[in-house]
Amino acid sequence: MTAAPPPRSPSSVGDALRVAILSVGDELLAGDILDTNMHGLANELAARGHRLVGTACVGDDLDAIVSALRRAAEDADVLLVTGGLGPTRDDLTRDGVAAAFGLALEERADYLAQAQGSNAVLTEGARLQATFPAGATVLENARGTAPGFLVEGAVDGRALRVACFPGVPSELRPMARALLDGLGPGARAATRKLRCCGATESEVGAVLAGVMDRARAGCLVGVTASKGILTVSVRGDDARAVDATLEEARALLGDTVFGEGDDTHPAAVVRLLAERGLVVTTAESCTGGLVAGAITSVPGSSEVLREAVVTYSNEAKTARLGVPEALLAEHGAVSEPVAAAMAEGARARSGADVALSVSGIAGPGGGTPDKPVGTVVFGLADAAGTVTRTFRWRGGRDELRTRSVTVSLELLRRRLLGAARDRLP
Amino acid sequence: MTAAPPPRSPSSVGDALRVAILSVGDELLAGDILDTNMHGLANELAARGHRLVGTACVGDDLDAIVSALRRAAEDADVLLVTGGLGPTRDDLTRDGVAAAFGLALEERADYLAQAQGSNAVLTEGARLQATFPAGATVLENARGTAPGFLVEGAVDGRALRVACFPGVPSELRPMARALLDGLGPGARAATRKLRCCGATESEVGAVLAGVMDRARAGCLVGVTASKGILTVSVRGDDARAVDATLEEARALLGDTVFGEGDDTHPAAVVRLLAERGLVVTTAESCTGGLVAGAITSVPGSSEVLREAVVTYSNEAKTARLGVPEALLAEHGAVSEPVAAAMAEGARARSGADVALSVSGIAGPGGGTPDKPVGTVVFGLADAAGTVTRTFRWRGGRDELRTRSVTVSLELLRRRLLGAARDRLP
Repeated sequence: MTAAPPPRSPSSVGDALRVAILSVGDELLAGDILDTNMHGLANELAARGHRLVGTACVGDDLDAIVSALRRAAEDADVLLVTGGLGPTRDDLTRDGVAAAFGLALEERADYLAQAQGSNAVLTEGARLQATFPAGATVLENARGTAPGFLVEGAVDGRALRVACFPGVPSELRPMARALLDGLGPGARAATRKLRCCGATESEVGAVLAGVMDRARAGCLVGVTASKGILTVSVRGDDARAVDATLEEARALLGDTVFGEGDDTHPAAVVRLLAERGLVVTTAESCTGGLVAGAITSVPGSSEVLREAVVTYSNEAKTARLGVPEALLAEHGAVSEPVAAAMAEGARARSGADVALSVSGIAGPGGGTPDKPVGTVVFGLADAAGTVTRTFRWRGGRDELRTRSVTVSLELLRRRLLGAARDRLP
Repeated sequence: MTAAPPPRSPSSVGDALRVAILSVGDELLAGDILDTNMHGLANELAARGHRLVGTACVGDDLDAIVSALRRAAEDADVLLVTGGLGPTRDDLTRDGVAAAFGLALEERADYLAQAQGSNAVLTEGARLQATFPAGATVLENARGTAPGFLVEGAVDGRALRVACFPGVPSELRPMARALLDGLGPGARAATRKLRCCGATESEVGAVLAGVMDRARAGCLVGVTASKGILTVSVRGDDARAVDATLEEARALLGDTVFGEGDDTHPAAVVRLLAERGLVVTTAESCTGGLVAGAITSVPGSSEVLREAVVTYSNEAKTARLGVPEALLAEHGAVSEPVAAAMAEGARARSGADVALSVSGIAGPGGGTPDKPVGTVVFGLADAAGTVTRTFRWRGGRDELRTRSVTVSLELLRRRLLGAARDRLP
């Protein structure tokens, strides 16, 4: 859901490079691993005002690599390649780049020692990792053994710069940042994002319809949703227009907005707690510690969370939280009375200002006609009293647990805001 | 790290389709969201013995979509397209497919009512979602409003089948499964995987070097690593050769292997606990509930975990686990004596058979010259006694916490195996 692309304005201070990304590896096409490099590099490019024109992934196949390089030369100024630089003979990125540019491969004496490391014998793998297309600039890898390289030239008569990196994300990211910094500034495209919770993508789209239409003049407005969190992004070459559009969107979205940029939902909740000087605790059943885990993902969360419990069994709910056995027997562990008692017990025993409880049937087993898999109850106890909520969702165990974490934190966020409208994702 | 591709053997029972995947969406290129669809579809294809020849991602741009379809027709029999089917004018997948195949777009009366839903007014968005290339087979979407469609024909004179799905993973997956099931069986390529922990990728590669070389005759052996977990995959057209190669690898890797296929590390630990009739509890500081969260990610984990605590503050460590104040004052919360006392206290108070503790400095603040960010101590207490470990890692807060979860579970797994070799990731 995005409006028209922005026209380039004269306020640009650099040139937006047209960049493409190529991932190389049989393991990616086989589904063995999820490629997160493209997403990471896309963010690095967006932050610098460069334009990602497209991405592709091919296997460890020389022809496929060469063909992908030729296609990139048609659309892009710069191609970033990840993977295929390892020490085995099926790592063919260096061969593919050499072939596409019509270059020989040469072993570089200055990198042989580094590749050999502390090994007594110079292995074939080490020799491969010290081999580069002739004239390539070697890109140092501070975290691994495989250096990257940069080749500048022409493929099929079209100018192209190709930078190749190892596929390991922790090695790749600093290397790619260093390279992109060296390429100079892109267009000063401004990008700002609002982060929201408590509405669906369609609802946000409807609320922002007018903004998205008017934005055609200069900004691109997009809405994306992931795991109950929505991101409204505004992009354009005119920073003032981006700011104005963003503020218009913020006013329309109201307290659905919890943050900006890469702000996380737990960070917003921790910030609100810290501002109010409040301490939270959690009593979790089906989420098994993930709500506390989300809160403690935030640096400095020790200010607002001192302790938490996972009470998975009924016995633990009684022993650790004082939930009456009779209440469990009468209503079952997945019930609003039990969620209320869990939250109240957690608050009283920990001395926290506010307590969250979650109890549900995450499946795949454990459902009943009355309480099918996907039934989750939430409790929140604070000085003003106790509230409970029940939801019935569809989805797998992981999805239900993740969603439950977001809803529990959103219940707290809205309570802290004193929001009249109790909207939950 | 993979050996040569397998030759096709005459034992194949179907035809491996050559499949390509195209993701469409400005939000993907802008880095707003991580595309997980390609990985999911790659697994579906691998499970059916079809061959994924490549993937690409383009923005919401008609020319780019048409160009990607043309390129797919060069290499693939089937193209799976995700995204760009929404209700707004920037959703251009249907236009792109129609243009590439030279088809008109037509509004389908039988889908207008469905697209309108309970709305009184027929919106432009609803009309768009009921519009398909002429002659397309509509693919029902049980979980959302945007149906998919299948077009079979020729692009630039090359036969191509294009199936288009919405980009939302939970809508896409069942639709794609139904379509792929309808395409019939692929080659009966056997794929088996070993899942390992407690060694590096290089170590596993070195151990398996001989297997990987001999495998050239018929199987492809690959090793991938993610977050401390290694996957050794063996693929080939001859199931017996795959089995033999896998068993050879298993024997060499010993107790590093914790499971097969898509088995998870927590599931392996829960299985070992259940087999031995043991109950575990956790006492977490820096991981803030994520170890308990990982254990309870496993269906049926209520058999082996009844309760757990997060003791983030020193006071909670004393109050909930009986860690002496003097011990905390003398050694600090991130120390082996405190980790031991946490585990022993958790075990004694919960009545569990075995207790895990984690305490560390996840950063970015809180480090000292003595105990820098990345220092994490682990404890394990069981009937045989208490063991502790200290690690110093580099990495960001999320990375350190994730790694700590894996190490904590691996410490338990090796204890349960009675492994002489205490190797940790």
